[in-house]
Amino acid sequence: MGSVIPLKKSANSAYLELKNVLGEKLQKVEVLIEQKLKSEVDLIKRMSEHHLKSGGKRLRALLTLESAKLTGYKEDNRDINLAACVELIHSATLLHDDVIDESSLRRGVKTTNSIWGNQSSILVGDYLLSRSFEIMVQDGDLEVLQLLSSTSAKIAQGEVLQLQHKGEADLLEETYIDIINLKTAALFSAATKTGACISKSNEKEKKALESYGRNLGLAFQIADDALDYYAKEKFFGKEIGKDFYEGKVTLPLITIFQKGNEEEKEFLNEIMKKDKRTEEDFSETLALIFKYKAVETSLKKAEYFVNVSYDALAIFPDSTDKRILQNLTSFSLNRSF
Amino acid sequence: MGSVIPLKKSANSAYLELKNVLGEKLQKVEVLIEQKLKSEVDLIKRMSEHHLKSGGKRLRALLTLESAKLTGYKEDNRDINLAACVELIHSATLLHDDVIDESSLRRGVKTTNSIWGNQSSILVGDYLLSRSFEIMVQDGDLEVLQLLSSTSAKIAQGEVLQLQHKGEADLLEETYIDIINLKTAALFSAATKTGACISKSNEKEKKALESYGRNLGLAFQIADDALDYYAKEKFFGKEIGKDFYEGKVTLPLITIFQKGNEEEKEFLNEIMKKDKRTEEDFSETLALIFKYKAVETSLKKAEYFVNVSYDALAIFPDSTDKRILQNLTSFSLNRSF
Repeated sequence: MGSVIPLKKSANSAYLELKNVLGEKLQKVEVLIEQKLKSEVDLIKRMSEHHLKSGGKRLRALLTLESAKLTGYKEDNRDINLAACVELIHSATLLHDDVIDESSLRRGVKTTNSIWGNQSSILVGDYLLSRSFEIMVQDGDLEVLQLLSSTSAKIAQGEVLQLQHKGEADLLEETYIDIINLKTAALFSAATKTGACISKSNEKEKKALESYGRNLGLAFQIADDALDYYAKEKFFGKEIGKDFYEGKVTLPLITIFQKGNEEEKEFLNEIMKKDKRTEEDFSETLALIFKYKAVETSLKKAEYFVNVSYDALAIFPDSTDKRILQNLTSFSLNRSF
Repeated sequence: MGSVIPLKKSANSAYLELKNVLGEKLQKVEVLIEQKLKSEVDLIKRMSEHHLKSGGKRLRALLTLESAKLTGYKEDNRDINLAACVELIHSATLLHDDVIDESSLRRGVKTTNSIWGNQSSILVGDYLLSRSFEIMVQDGDLEVLQLLSSTSAKIAQGEVLQLQHKGEADLLEETYIDIINLKTAALFSAATKTGACISKSNEKEKKALESYGRNLGLAFQIADDALDYYAKEKFFGKEIGKDFYEGKVTLPLITIFQKGNEEEKEFLNEIMKKDKRTEEDFSETLALIFKYKAVETSLKKAEYFVNVSYDALAIFPDSTDKRILQNLTSFSLNRSF
């Protein structure tokens, strides 16, 4: 816990550095995904191409590639194949999330469901997930297969848990952490552990990279949720208040519930229970967020996970790759994918 | 093609005989599925239990078990594990289908989506599919993993293809066969081939059981689609006209389009293009179905696949298990799951 979080201004450059060092590999991941999504069904091809092109900085794929690099993976293709799998699992999840949340925009681009409808989006999500399993099976590593198939089950469980607690203003912080652990951090940790698995790392190294990924994922999701009450749409590419209007209770709301007086707690209970929330509800909630510094408090809590993530890399000898992964931890607080 | 289709009255007993000879194994499949669906997320447990209990005769699981038995599989567990995988893939598909078709009843029981909503049903479908992959991975046979993951992608492709051609009264019969080949027959053939794979059958035996399953699946789906214009709800457990109201063009409609005059074709074009069809539209269509004996014609065409399925077993020496699988082919025409 003694490590220093790098300055905020280095955050974006940390991502760019990662992308830069892996540019060629990432390009191969993109080409592989495009090849694999070829389908005799034209609509699938068009939909999955639109979906995969419309965003994402491929952070999870980059994490797999960089973890493999850090632990000395030297061969040609397994890192690329498995980075593609991780990204496809993520893409399948996003497709289903957009249907579930009835989203019309993602990163400022029209969502697949808003163009082609929910029905096709559900099916194309199934298709992406199945294709991801096919690529893993071709790779043929049972440890990785076990890891990624159980991760896929965890993501679905996390999403269901989130739905189940929709509208609960008094959600426990611990339950919130359980949810984001399943729905987000599981795939981050699977991404980094996969990188370690293919380079024949020992158990300690695998566990370290798994822990790095999990805590990075937790920090990342907490920051993402906090910025939903803060970010400007133009900069962040998503609408502010999305979670609020959907009735999703995240750390900023939990924070004001923890600190608020009886009247404020009652207010939160009432508005979150409603089927729909108004703009006025949102303004009043933003006032409470401001009053209790809920965004700052959330980001402060995320720092805990940033530190755990950073420190998990301590067992590795110093190297450029280690430094890149370390720098990335602060990035999770300042920008989101 | 020289084989004789067993009499219709033996159809139901063919299924009962199959179930009888595999009763104990099937029981173990059910127990395994129940164990595997345990989740710390209570809602998932309740939803998947409801969904799995509310129907299905486990025909696909039985096909895996019986194909393994026919080809001499003697060990304890792999047939059970993989039969459970096949059934879970099927269940995941049904959950998503019910959301897509906005179905409220399946076999007379309320669908999962009508009780818990579409959002949870999408996610629980993802969960079932992921769990199925986990069980396969534990089994660890790369040939089977390859087969079942590619099958899962095929099912999604078939469903998308079906959506894409919704409302097209002039659908080619060949395109219809392509659709049901992907969405239904692929899993039937994967079920039977899986049975052959685990008993170390040679390539010829695998291909024979794969062909048996594929053609059985085609016959089965054609019969299912034909009976949508014929079966009584009480007996069949599903509403008549479901495909029609959803705008799905199946073989009976294709048949009247093939035989109808210009006016009738124009009528079909018009009503299938509409967003919703009325009861009057359905009565008029049923009159055409009757006029052109479209149900009988469809079932007659299904007989072709029944015969190919039956004949695929010719390479196996006579045995009780072979006879049971042979008898089952006629069953596909008379009852549906």
